[in-house]
Amino acid sequence: MSMKKILLALLITFSISSRGQKASVEKTTIISPDGKIRLTIRVIATGTATYEVSYKDRAVILPSSLGFSLKNPKVDLTKFTIEKIDSSVFDETWKPVWGEYSSIRDNHKELVLSLKDKGTSGILLNVVFRVFNEGVGFRYEFPRQQKLNHFIIADEMTQFHLTGDHTAHWIPGDYDTNEFFYSHTKLSAVDANISNTFNSIFAKTYFNRNAVQTPLMMKSKDGLYINIHEAALINYPAMNLVLDKKTFTLQSHLVPDAVGNKAYLQTPAHTPWRTIIVTDDAREIIPANRMILNLNEPSKIDNPSFIKPQKFVGVWWEMHVGKSSWDYGVTQSGSSIQPHGHHGATTANVKRYIDFAAKNKIDAVLVEGWNEGWEDWFGQWKENVFDFVTPYPDYDVNEVQRYAERKGVKIIMHHETSASVTNYERWMDTAYRFMLNHGMNAVKTGYVGYIIPRGEHHDGQWMVNHYLRVADKTAHYRIMLDAHEPVRPTGIHRTYPNWLACEAARGNEFNAWSEGNPPDHETILPFTRLMGGPMDYTPGIFQVKMNVYDSKKKEQVHTTLAKQLALYVTMYSPLQMAADLPENYEAHMDAFQFIKDVAVDWDDTKVLAAEPGDFLVIARKAKGSPNWFLGAITDEKSRTLTADLSFLDPNKKYTATIYRDGNDADWKNNPMSYSIEKIVVDNKTKLNLKLAPGGGTAISIIADRH
Amino acid sequence: MSMKKILLALLITFSISSRGQKASVEKTTIISPDGKIRLTIRVIATGTATYEVSYKDRAVILPSSLGFSLKNPKVDLTKFTIEKIDSSVFDETWKPVWGEYSSIRDNHKELVLSLKDKGTSGILLNVVFRVFNEGVGFRYEFPRQQKLNHFIIADEMTQFHLTGDHTAHWIPGDYDTNEFFYSHTKLSAVDANISNTFNSIFAKTYFNRNAVQTPLMMKSKDGLYINIHEAALINYPAMNLVLDKKTFTLQSHLVPDAVGNKAYLQTPAHTPWRTIIVTDDAREIIPANRMILNLNEPSKIDNPSFIKPQKFVGVWWEMHVGKSSWDYGVTQSGSSIQPHGHHGATTANVKRYIDFAAKNKIDAVLVEGWNEGWEDWFGQWKENVFDFVTPYPDYDVNEVQRYAERKGVKIIMHHETSASVTNYERWMDTAYRFMLNHGMNAVKTGYVGYIIPRGEHHDGQWMVNHYLRVADKTAHYRIMLDAHEPVRPTGIHRTYPNWLACEAARGNEFNAWSEGNPPDHETILPFTRLMGGPMDYTPGIFQVKMNVYDSKKKEQVHTTLAKQLALYVTMYSPLQMAADLPENYEAHMDAFQFIKDVAVDWDDTKVLAAEPGDFLVIARKAKGSPNWFLGAITDEKSRTLTADLSFLDPNKKYTATIYRDGNDADWKNNPMSYSIEKIVVDNKTKLNLKLAPGGGTAISIIADRH
Repeated sequence: MSMKKILLALLITFSISSRGQKASVEKTTIISPDGKIRLTIRVIATGTATYEVSYKDRAVILPSSLGFSLKNPKVDLTKFTIEKIDSSVFDETWKPVWGEYSSIRDNHKELVLSLKDKGTSGILLNVVFRVFNEGVGFRYEFPRQQKLNHFIIADEMTQFHLTGDHTAHWIPGDYDTNEFFYSHTKLSAVDANISNTFNSIFAKTYFNRNAVQTPLMMKSKDGLYINIHEAALINYPAMNLVLDKKTFTLQSHLVPDAVGNKAYLQTPAHTPWRTIIVTDDAREIIPANRMILNLNEPSKIDNPSFIKPQKFVGVWWEMHVGKSSWDYGVTQSGSSIQPHGHHGATTANVKRYIDFAAKNKIDAVLVEGWNEGWEDWFGQWKENVFDFVTPYPDYDVNEVQRYAERKGVKIIMHHETSASVTNYERWMDTAYRFMLNHGMNAVKTGYVGYIIPRGEHHDGQWMVNHYLRVADKTAHYRIMLDAHEPVRPTGIHRTYPNWLACEAARGNEFNAWSEGNPPDHETILPFTRLMGGPMDYTPGIFQVKMNVYDSKKKEQVHTTLAKQLALYVTMYSPLQMAADLPENYEAHMDAFQFIKDVAVDWDDTKVLAAEPGDFLVIARKAKGSPNWFLGAITDEKSRTLTADLSFLDPNKKYTATIYRDGNDADWKNNPMSYSIEKIVVDNKTKLNLKLAPGGGTAISIIADRH
Repeated sequence: MSMKKILLALLITFSISSRGQKASVEKTTIISPDGKIRLTIRVIATGTATYEVSYKDRAVILPSSLGFSLKNPKVDLTKFTIEKIDSSVFDETWKPVWGEYSSIRDNHKELVLSLKDKGTSGILLNVVFRVFNEGVGFRYEFPRQQKLNHFIIADEMTQFHLTGDHTAHWIPGDYDTNEFFYSHTKLSAVDANISNTFNSIFAKTYFNRNAVQTPLMMKSKDGLYINIHEAALINYPAMNLVLDKKTFTLQSHLVPDAVGNKAYLQTPAHTPWRTIIVTDDAREIIPANRMILNLNEPSKIDNPSFIKPQKFVGVWWEMHVGKSSWDYGVTQSGSSIQPHGHHGATTANVKRYIDFAAKNKIDAVLVEGWNEGWEDWFGQWKENVFDFVTPYPDYDVNEVQRYAERKGVKIIMHHETSASVTNYERWMDTAYRFMLNHGMNAVKTGYVGYIIPRGEHHDGQWMVNHYLRVADKTAHYRIMLDAHEPVRPTGIHRTYPNWLACEAARGNEFNAWSEGNPPDHETILPFTRLMGGPMDYTPGIFQVKMNVYDSKKKEQVHTTLAKQLALYVTMYSPLQMAADLPENYEAHMDAFQFIKDVAVDWDDTKVLAAEPGDFLVIARKAKGSPNWFLGAITDEKSRTLTADLSFLDPNKKYTATIYRDGNDADWKNNPMSYSIEKIVVDNKTKLNLKLAPGGGTAISIIADRH
């Protein structure tokens, strides 16, 4: 990795004086390496500091103000004088431990605006801007200074002044959950109060009718795609955005702590990066998630050899569909547990999954409900629920370990914390040692419920710090991490590549027992939630209708079976579950072949077609292999999409196995109709992919040997 | 230990019907074993349940109502029907691991009032009363039941309806501190708002002008001494008392959590015991603390051989007086530490204390300021301050350990948590292992500052549970515990005898750097704070005036030197510090002899004279020895008190060494004047002890060998 940080020549600083010295305006501009994005900074005479962004000379962000309200010391930082402006250029290429690309270029221009409070506090505040070809990132830095040591943030006052009433793909602002499905409306129609209708989400904290979460994906009338999010959320609360519908200005709103404060910081300190990705080609949005990675720090893990992208099955979906249960028995409060006979995580049942995994080259088996506590774990703000080391009497952790080792399969540990985080933090070391002592080096965590410490929120500073402590401590124990119900990711997996995935959005599980995820859900997630990092969506549900488990059930997955296959490509994760039951796969082993074949780590990624919330076609090249895998998905509408395979090696022929919707397929009435065909393709092939309503196509493109 | 629990004959239950069936009153009475205390329970027709207490036929507590307000389920439990009344008698004698007595008799009558909510909730609630010769204890029990599992307490509605405007020795109600000095006023003059004037206390949370803390010591006009407190405070917040000045009714007020709830419970559950001690002889108050012990559970520690009452010196007072510092250097935020040269806990300085301890048969040396973090530990709600395992560069923990071991002295560990309890809980296991690896088996903890989890309070349920977790975990590691700034004790040291002492009140340290503790402070603490358990008051300050350290200092200890000696007897603790500097002791080795001689564990205790807030004379018999030690103290008034030594063995002669105030002594102007004399005494001796203003007398009474 070569790193270049050179001082930019002085194309940037000048000042305009109009109508005499009082009305002077300081203005500075930097331009992306490819020249398309222009960032302009102003500090006007009153002291207000603003930034604005344009793309190909079209306004993206109108002048938007910057600043803070501090609680201690009590001072508003909204009027500034400029102390200094520095700039530099940066160009390096780095290799992620795993990812969508084998190497990533970080090429940006940086501008450091050193400000001083115009008021009496004398506080120094820098704003650091980085302009990439993909967009703009900026963060605030409070340098070490005499006038400020410890401080408390009352709120951050960052604005994103949009140019109009864009179409937005949004979920309601909330302090505790991101498990909503998306609304696709004009900004003027945002109504976060609908969060109250999401009864399938237990722990949610609504705060403002006009609030939305990030990543926020928007499209302007003139065809600009704008994505606002943050990068490197560390020691700071998550940012929600509150919309002023008169001006179409989004204002940062940080998640508070138990006493209403936003963040406790000590100089030198900085915020996460606020990110604005912009393009006029929807196919460029997903690749631009590399900008978010580039705004994160390099890996802290010196020897990442324990980190292994992988597929897994698990004792999990069978509980969601009601075939078995997490708990071992029933109990009255305080009484001993009486087994009820339908516990899922028994030694025998787990062996069945191990056998299936071993036979089908699936790396690992997740086991949920293996440990005591599930009889009384949910919804009561109970602090001491699980101890993470005590198996149920019908689960022999040593026997399972021996059996799995003999079969060459790993067991993935499950730590449901019930959001009692104080309890989990007391047990963490013991729990991770227990894992290592029993041959496990990957853990899925869960945070279902209201947080303990009571009054804290899933997305507040204290919990953000907790998730990072878990990433750091699991790294120390050389354990891989998959977090469910944490704050949504912001690219920190670059820094902690042992943190392979998060759920942190509405996952496939909701299809089993709620109104589910509408057919457009998977067509928007890659443009929103996944901009920050991989998602453990748990795809691969073949038995789409839940009434096979119980004739009274009306729930179903809102996709076709073929679309479930396509998700292994469109829904990027280095940790992919084959979430359905072994018996459901065994009934469709021809389709399961795609799950067996598909890679989980990639050298390259090509977005062939895209429209957020409508459709997506992605091809990815398997790591260290000439083979490609392609996923195409649509929303509730049937579509025919074209996949131009010109990215293939011109010197190779490939066998493409196409897993597509049956001609009569449709997500609602005939979701499990699919068809598989093999054809020979090369870099001149253009495939027309016909997707059923709620459907998809998955293709393995295997280079011929010769 | 023999345990007898037999059903009482039916002297107790009957019902009165007046004016027909509607106005029926259920009334039940039980009487203490000695017949002096009478408890009457009524459930009147409206459903209100009350209790009342009399002593020798004089009312102590007028009919006072019982009940709860629950938040979840939302129901007030204030009107009841009686389901059942049970009663029993209990008489056993048990031996504490250490204490003021070698054995303790628990003789009480118990009445269980089984109630049911008269409203629609159907909730069952029992009130269990125990009547001792010393007073009454009662607690609420929520039995296992269909109608109630998890529940949240909004508040407990227990009343103590007093008979009039008693004189009260009170400190302001508060959620975070008990480090006030006492006011001695009529109840009608209580004004908790004075807590705002205690500027020397950083973390305090005032909530109600009429609120006071327990133990609350009162005296009625007709000479009854009444003490209200609680026993076995476990998994529940501390109880403050709010006074209704019209009716002189005290109402329980529980310390809230971060979101305003009081307690999270699950049936079967119970509250702590509410205790009312009453006597007409002030000398009986302190011995009645055995009632509080009797209301606690027996020891959970099977093998208490590691628990050793002891004396210690420490690198501690020298920081309070400004001679050295806890911190090693000075630092700007984030920068490296520059040593300033007056760090207290250096290897060399600690060796000096070890030498002094070894020479004078002091068991141990406390070392504060040994670990990194003190440069920036205070008052900023900073979460990650100390790691409890990283010594400063000038403190060689291994060398100190070797040196101390060679000299036969133990080192006492110090864990200042800065009230960042989430951080401490993360480090506890590591920190205790570090202690054992370095030869330490006693730890002094500290909780200075506002609690993290932010919004929690020192005296709330979460912290109460934390203190107990520390007691339990240190017991597991066979470590002794001395907690500073926890909730005030409630007799839990019976259950966890490794929890030797607490500060949990305004200690001697305040005399070094604040307005200090008035001369009556030590004459009230044994009747208030110490009713719940031993106090690490850190007596033994010989250099009473702080101006010897810095001529500008006006602070001083508000006692004579002789009174400091007497505190080793009057201020009971199995862990007693000789708090002053070695050089100050070396200047008065004749007086220091008493500290060398005095025991820290006792077979018997005799209160010879007492008036709360005025004076106290106690004699104690050293454990397993014929020797006695006597302490006599007074408030700001000079007094001559009589000590009748008739408790001595009639067959023995003793040499009494009397350490008394000099004839010209007085706490303010001539505190260090003392006189020592030896006389022969026996069980017929009556000593007249002349105490200077703010003075005291200490006497060792050593049985002659023959």
